[in-house]
Amino acid sequence: MKELLIHLNKAFESKARLGIMSALMVNDKLDFNALKELLDLTDGNLASHLKALEEQGYLEVQKQFVGRKPNTTYGATPEGRKAFGEHLSALEKLISGNR
Amino acid sequence: MKELLIHLNKAFESKARLGIMSALMVNDKLDFNALKELLDLTDGNLASHLKALEEQGYLEVQKQFVGRKPNTTYGATPEGRKAFGEHLSALEKLISGNR
Repeated sequence: MKELLIHLNKAFESKARLGIMSALMVNDKLDFNALKELLDLTDGNLASHLKALEEQGYLEVQKQFVGRKPNTTYGATPEGRKAFGEHLSALEKLISGNR
Repeated sequence: MKELLIHLNKAFESKARLGIMSALMVNDKLDFNALKELLDLTDGNLASHLKALEEQGYLEVQKQFVGRKPNTTYGATPEGRKAFGEHLSALEKLISGNR
């Protein structure tokens, strides 16, 4: 059991983080509003989870202008994809141990 | 995505709670020391997660004496088994959406 749990990554524990990473595994890039819409989170809540994932090196953030409006997009880094994949594999093993 | 995340149960988010519930899906009853050993948690940490799960109605606690020593065992309630099963199903769907 310990050996199984050790592979779960604390960075992805919360529902919001699982949702953000899942959305960015499937979509190369999403902007703030698209993520907010997909995940049904408040601005503050989403922003703080994005920041935490960026600080861990799991997300990359690109700021640009669309016309005159600033637009920020988020994408999973290769490290983020790898780490999230490992987290999902650990969850899979935990689930299959329960079935 | 929202529809998927809504079925994840906050009560089981943390690694420790996933571990406790998994251990008690497989084993009918475990005492405090067995859980501590299995999950590699500190006394305080394990106790607070057990209490939270008990308060939600997911665990039942039995106190008895083994000889002169008090012994407390923990087991999943039917509600706990059902809720944890639903949580695992939601995780499974999330994982399959990422593969």
